[in-house]
Amino acid sequence: MNRPKSENITWSEAIVSREDRERRQGHRGAVLWFTGLSSSGKSTLARLVEKQLFERGCRTYILDGDNVRHGLNRDLGFSPADREENIRRIGEVAKLFVDAGVIVLTAFISPYRADRDRNRALLPAGEFVEIWCRCAVEECERRDPKGLYKKARAGLIPEFTGISAPYEEPLAAEVVLDTDQLSPHACVQRILDELEERLILGAPAGK
Amino acid sequence: MNRPKSENITWSEAIVSREDRERRQGHRGAVLWFTGLSSSGKSTLARLVEKQLFERGCRTYILDGDNVRHGLNRDLGFSPADREENIRRIGEVAKLFVDAGVIVLTAFISPYRADRDRNRALLPAGEFVEIWCRCAVEECERRDPKGLYKKARAGLIPEFTGISAPYEEPLAAEVVLDTDQLSPHACVQRILDELEERLILGAPAGK
Repeated sequence: MNRPKSENITWSEAIVSREDRERRQGHRGAVLWFTGLSSSGKSTLARLVEKQLFERGCRTYILDGDNVRHGLNRDLGFSPADREENIRRIGEVAKLFVDAGVIVLTAFISPYRADRDRNRALLPAGEFVEIWCRCAVEECERRDPKGLYKKARAGLIPEFTGISAPYEEPLAAEVVLDTDQLSPHACVQRILDELEERLILGAPAGK
Repeated sequence: MNRPKSENITWSEAIVSREDRERRQGHRGAVLWFTGLSSSGKSTLARLVEKQLFERGCRTYILDGDNVRHGLNRDLGFSPADREENIRRIGEVAKLFVDAGVIVLTAFISPYRADRDRNRALLPAGEFVEIWCRCAVEECERRDPKGLYKKARAGLIPEFTGISAPYEEPLAAEVVLDTDQLSPHACVQRILDELEERLILGAPAGK
């Protein structure tokens, strides 16, 4: 008698593990944590990298202001405590995506070292890849596609990172990109190389 | 000259859409929102369904107390306001997973109708599948694998759903499962049928 498959599965066998997912998809889950000043290139690079990863067949997702600030974190403002909670929640959500086997790219200024390091500590070593988009504030201000620096200079945005609030530079980011000097293509390639070196791409399927 | 692919991608072309993901994987993203009393079978069924979906090649993830209460929602207690915020955040995270093309299964008592309906409203019609694990409280209490009902009866857990706090029954759940009468297999099959009817499984690859 052909009993339906599901009838033979006990509860404990029914757990789909992270390893099961990674084995099938041929890459590991990880966080690519982009950090840097406003207009330093975080979102642009995250999208370009995601596109490349998607074309290689990877499972990816971007967390950024657009999908987080208006949803999960809509209850948070810009006080120091709320900024910290904002980054904490993003780190926890990123961890869930990694557990689901996804390469999750986060694009937030995340100016405080302690906040970034706390999120790094949520994951096993090697799965949190900090990518510092290093760009002179003058260049960011020149780009200013949303006019935020202009508003900040006019005093309309208080506590604006790089102008009236500090940006704490990463001390040991896995990838440092001088986005005011390198082409986007060169930056993307640098990130992909890093993911290959760290065995986030490739490998597990053949293990 | 063979220019590397990424150099030809402009920023606007670099967006990987939900449709791109769904086309590749051959199924749609959706939330399977399990609700019901403690010990009514939510987690067990979520795992059995996930296993079946995984074996069909679907991208899935389970959100439950284990990975949410100790992480994202570790700052929340069990006051009415905190319970509401707990379910709100889970709904927002589920929405992100759906946007990533995942079939996300959530297993929380979620006793309040307003909280469940708010999460339903976050998504387009048809993408929030409410699954009510309907089980007599007497049967839940008889199962009680974690001894929670015993503690609740002894007054050690205040505001315990079904004992000292209300469970607001769904008025229009997509799937109602009498888990005290149906076999787990029958419940799983009922859910899979529903997903096929709703075209969450199959279809998009050939569109």
